[in-house]
Amino acid sequence: MVTKLTLEYDGGGFAGWARQPGERTVQEELERALRTILGTRDLGGEPLSVTVAGRTDRGVHAWGQIASYRHEAVDPLRLNALLPRDVAVLAAEPAAAAHFDARRDATSRTYCYRLLCRRARSALLAGTALWVSRALDLEAMQECARALVGRHDFTAFTPTDTEHVRFEREVLMAEWRAHAELVEWWIEADTFMRHMNRVLVGTMLEVGAGRRSVAEFTALLGGRPRGEAGPTAPPHGLALASVAYGNRGGPYAGSARC
Amino acid sequence: MVTKLTLEYDGGGFAGWARQPGERTVQEELERALRTILGTRDLGGEPLSVTVAGRTDRGVHAWGQIASYRHEAVDPLRLNALLPRDVAVLAAEPAAAAHFDARRDATSRTYCYRLLCRRARSALLAGTALWVSRALDLEAMQECARALVGRHDFTAFTPTDTEHVRFEREVLMAEWRAHAELVEWWIEADTFMRHMNRVLVGTMLEVGAGRRSVAEFTALLGGRPRGEAGPTAPPHGLALASVAYGNRGGPYAGSARC
Repeated sequence: MVTKLTLEYDGGGFAGWARQPGERTVQEELERALRTILGTRDLGGEPLSVTVAGRTDRGVHAWGQIASYRHEAVDPLRLNALLPRDVAVLAAEPAAAAHFDARRDATSRTYCYRLLCRRARSALLAGTALWVSRALDLEAMQECARALVGRHDFTAFTPTDTEHVRFEREVLMAEWRAHAELVEWWIEADTFMRHMNRVLVGTMLEVGAGRRSVAEFTALLGGRPRGEAGPTAPPHGLALASVAYGNRGGPYAGSARC
Repeated sequence: MVTKLTLEYDGGGFAGWARQPGERTVQEELERALRTILGTRDLGGEPLSVTVAGRTDRGVHAWGQIASYRHEAVDPLRLNALLPRDVAVLAAEPAAAAHFDARRDATSRTYCYRLLCRRARSALLAGTALWVSRALDLEAMQECARALVGRHDFTAFTPTDTEHVRFEREVLMAEWRAHAELVEWWIEADTFMRHMNRVLVGTMLEVGAGRRSVAEFTALLGGRPRGEAGPTAPPHGLALASVAYGNRGGPYAGSARC
């Protein structure tokens, strides 16, 4: 039996999703809470392990992360009572497929990067949006977004020292959406490489500031070296919004955004 | 010369606006930063003191608080560099009137109280919205809102042990606005008494839960004792959204909401 979990977390206090010795991680908090409820007696000696759709980095948030584990579903309210304030389980349900795996079976992930575009910094959005005080050419940034849709080689947008073996990714949707001072970057792709979203945002911010042309941006999509792209934008503006399984472009499962 | 400041703050780490010995307050942080820039030499021996439109309680946020002080304007960016992360000055400008006072001259204040209505708690909105997991009768709560508009005696909605001397207030606008899981309470009044907003919300939540009728709610508006109203809702859902000066019902000066 496999259980599918929908999770929300504030990445600000975590060294990312994945368990690491000596670090506070979402995976470790979640597995500890699950072990408290499930015990180990029914696991047949196998340690409880949670698989996740998007292995978010240190400081990155999630509104609708999907995880799975091989064991029975537990009451989300009971799980939330054991979890720290910065992680919440929104749903826990038996997976439809007997061998469901949150990572392997995901057909796409959708991320959102938020900018707060105004002269003064924010107290309330300090942890969940990147403050940008200079004027941005959003039209040029939107042209970059349009160029991203389709299959491209994203070598330029991930660290040179990498565990990835293939560098092509398929972008299903990419656009900038402005809501007054809040400007959001939305992107859906089959999978993302490490830092890919943040380097995309960092590079498009250079286009928005007039320091790089749209043509120079699109030229990076043919497998250029990392050094030719822009800086890695900070993690706190980024959130994994939702994950799709088999229904590409379907409704987002994400929770309320803050 | 008087300066008018527009402020945003996350109330979670503050014992409210007003300076208190031994407590961390917004007023103290702001006055300290202003003194660092202005020094004391030009104040003619008078200690720098900031007046505020809405003296928010412990844990209450502000998106568009207005404050004033008798001295020259300073660069908001310079002020923000001296302020802690949970307070931000959005604007600092010479007041139009020579004797402008942020508190005395305000004609109305607008507050917003946010509810997150869903089965599971939230990690990202834990500090800025009250989680309500039971179903609410929003139509009945909206009837309460409609009954609030106008002049009423709010004795039932403020602590019995009070410094207030008159208990009538004029409500200019009051309504519930639902955006999917987020349900917002918006209210504009000439002035608010201590805890008034939070007791109004706490009492309307009883109406929404079916434990009190709309008629029982409206009967409280004739100067009933505090004991007849509902509980005081927690502070973290509440924010001072904006303050108006002479232009009642005019555009809100508030900043981006989170």
